[in-house]
Amino acid sequence: MSLSRRDMIAAGAALAALPAAARAVRPPNIILIVADDLGWGDLGCYGSPFIRTPHLDRLANAGVRMTDFYASANVCTPSRAGMLTGRYPIRTGLAHEVITVKDRHGLPLSEVTIAEALKPGYATMLAGKWHLGHAAPHWPPMVHGFDAFAGIPYSNDMRPLSFFRSRADGTLAEEPVVQERLTDQFFDAGIDFIRASAARPFFLMLTPSAPHIPLRPGKAFAGRSDAGSYGDVVEELDAAVGRLVAALKGAGLERDTLILFTSDNGPWFEGSAGPAQGRKGGAGWDGGYLVPLIASWPGTLRPRVTDAIAMNIDLLPTLCTLAGAPLPPVTLDGRDLSGVWRRGAASPHEQLILFNNERVAALRTPRWKFVGRSYYRSYNVPLAAIGYPLLFDVTRDPGETINLAARQPEVMADLSARFIAARDSFEPLGLRQVPDFLPSAS
Amino acid sequence: MSLSRRDMIAAGAALAALPAAARAVRPPNIILIVADDLGWGDLGCYGSPFIRTPHLDRLANAGVRMTDFYASANVCTPSRAGMLTGRYPIRTGLAHEVITVKDRHGLPLSEVTIAEALKPGYATMLAGKWHLGHAAPHWPPMVHGFDAFAGIPYSNDMRPLSFFRSRADGTLAEEPVVQERLTDQFFDAGIDFIRASAARPFFLMLTPSAPHIPLRPGKAFAGRSDAGSYGDVVEELDAAVGRLVAALKGAGLERDTLILFTSDNGPWFEGSAGPAQGRKGGAGWDGGYLVPLIASWPGTLRPRVTDAIAMNIDLLPTLCTLAGAPLPPVTLDGRDLSGVWRRGAASPHEQLILFNNERVAALRTPRWKFVGRSYYRSYNVPLAAIGYPLLFDVTRDPGETINLAARQPEVMADLSARFIAARDSFEPLGLRQVPDFLPSAS
Repeated sequence: MSLSRRDMIAAGAALAALPAAARAVRPPNIILIVADDLGWGDLGCYGSPFIRTPHLDRLANAGVRMTDFYASANVCTPSRAGMLTGRYPIRTGLAHEVITVKDRHGLPLSEVTIAEALKPGYATMLAGKWHLGHAAPHWPPMVHGFDAFAGIPYSNDMRPLSFFRSRADGTLAEEPVVQERLTDQFFDAGIDFIRASAARPFFLMLTPSAPHIPLRPGKAFAGRSDAGSYGDVVEELDAAVGRLVAALKGAGLERDTLILFTSDNGPWFEGSAGPAQGRKGGAGWDGGYLVPLIASWPGTLRPRVTDAIAMNIDLLPTLCTLAGAPLPPVTLDGRDLSGVWRRGAASPHEQLILFNNERVAALRTPRWKFVGRSYYRSYNVPLAAIGYPLLFDVTRDPGETINLAARQPEVMADLSARFIAARDSFEPLGLRQVPDFLPSAS
Repeated sequence: MSLSRRDMIAAGAALAALPAAARAVRPPNIILIVADDLGWGDLGCYGSPFIRTPHLDRLANAGVRMTDFYASANVCTPSRAGMLTGRYPIRTGLAHEVITVKDRHGLPLSEVTIAEALKPGYATMLAGKWHLGHAAPHWPPMVHGFDAFAGIPYSNDMRPLSFFRSRADGTLAEEPVVQERLTDQFFDAGIDFIRASAARPFFLMLTPSAPHIPLRPGKAFAGRSDAGSYGDVVEELDAAVGRLVAALKGAGLERDTLILFTSDNGPWFEGSAGPAQGRKGGAGWDGGYLVPLIASWPGTLRPRVTDAIAMNIDLLPTLCTLAGAPLPPVTLDGRDLSGVWRRGAASPHEQLILFNNERVAALRTPRWKFVGRSYYRSYNVPLAAIGYPLLFDVTRDPGETINLAARQPEVMADLSARFIAARDSFEPLGLRQVPDFLPSAS
């Protein structure tokens, strides 16, 4: 099916579909950097008091910084599935937890990734962590539209871990992993790809394993930050971004290239969710989902900070628009953010749905947050079902501390209905049901 | 056994044990107010931007406000057991979760409560929620040293719920509960007790059910706050404290009375933990344990804000000291805070232990926080045992975001050893073991 979709997006179609204004210029190169478990609050430009990220701050200050950008899941595999396909992860079959070493499934070949959607106009590469399946036929990333791959199949705490590098013939060469060198290896591979890609537009997806544990900074960064090993690896990541930008400049491509930076979910046991509560894996609360989004495109995007609500599922349609590529013929949940980035337009979303595994956990609108599911100790608590749904005015109360459910009956009626509609629409797509356990009252 | 302890603390002993300076004056009346599930950040004087608490703010501004005061557990029953006995709750057999309606156990009669320790010098009353067992012989609070009781046996979300009022003969009269009137009922009973207690020093323990759910503000407060039903009930609680203080003044007792205000654990699904992360029931993180502590004693305690580490187990020894009562002949974990309150002395603790059920979850020292156990989704994760213990410099990083374990090997060696020692010393006291489940890596 992947092949048939590619056939549909025939060579000429992409350019023919370009809007008139865009057709005149070459579509931008695109670099999408996705950190692993980096918190919203762990970059200087997002207010970290401890971690120095001058290169990312420079990109943010010169470009667009989004304050209300969500990952499409609170853990890695579904979030990446959502980002790559432009669809809520539950549509891809990957909503449940993360893929483990023993799992034999992966991103279905029927899904259209950003890399596939940008074909044939773009040269494409994935440098970094994949984590969307590492058993045939779902693996390697080259079966999903990436011309080249240099990276690891899953998280850097999963064993055995190997570094794979694609050969010209599509086979993979395996190299041992040295954790301390991973960030450099990923970025080196990406920089090599940039230098080799002058002939046509390229899409480089750079997915470092930092700052996922284990935290193993390279020699030059070990102990250098003011924020422990976590700070070291984030600062190392920032420095690698600096190298990448310098390489772009060196290749004369800076103004032709859109650089995006985000994270796959909120922070785990370390790292800061900023003013949000909750963390990676915690159902419903913003801290598991809110991540940085920086969009830098010198000469095209003017400096802007926006609180438009958005999600990583928006990247596929946005990048298709910017590249002049047609949208894939599938149900997309993501929307085009180019107006937000270019003109500061309002969010194209009336609402965003936050999932916890196969369950709808929360809804976000521009002003409100409805939390219908959370964890308490070892209990997965269906708050909406036990008569205790939560409504927060997140524009005023980003920490989600003051429940306005009783005070805003009209908003509650609206959001409750939307929550039920989302549940009825999406949860049947789930692969398996996770049982509920009610906590004993206390 | 309770009786024999009371015998030991014979009538004359208390006064004979008074230090010379204290013997000259009548020991202070003591009012200990304990909110239910109120967060550290939910009072104006602790920085709430949403909830107005002028009466509590006034007590705090005129007295001592502690910024680093911990509940002895992250849920209600063990925290109250620790507070009442001056001992880590695991010594009392009540470390595990909370007592539910069907449970038949309670605070052992062998335990010495603050009320018992202050006998016979003090008239004593509990007005509010008990939640330390409601089956004979552990119930009612009168078997634990309280002369009188007016309140509810457990949390206000447990059914069936009745309001009990003790008669002079020690029996209980039962009244139906009207949630909207509970706060007023508790405080009315306390104020009646104050007015009837001019003859000798009194100890009034006031344990409102607010702001535990269900949140049912009284008519005068419903919709009045700027912070939903949660804000309404907290503001109602604050107003009730104002009525109490006015009644004290009216009785001419203001300068003879120490008023304490705290909470039994961090906030649950609503409410703010201030800069801390985590909430009620969440293992290890400060948000489950950090609570306000206000100590007001006009003419005796001067205005002071202190970051001395302390815990509600300190109240028993502190109150014994201030009352000139001998310490009960049991193993106490709490320490006397009177020097901290009077002179701004350093904390009497080298460390505080934070428990999650029967498990040691974390250690706090004046500067450091060691987290050895946490929850991730439905998993109870023994971080220390899986090689990922967390060390935070909470004086600089109260949100516990930057793990300094790798950066501070000497501190880690010290705290790891203390953590193991605490585990080895306390966990065998646990009634039952809760199995560990490791999360799959992601």
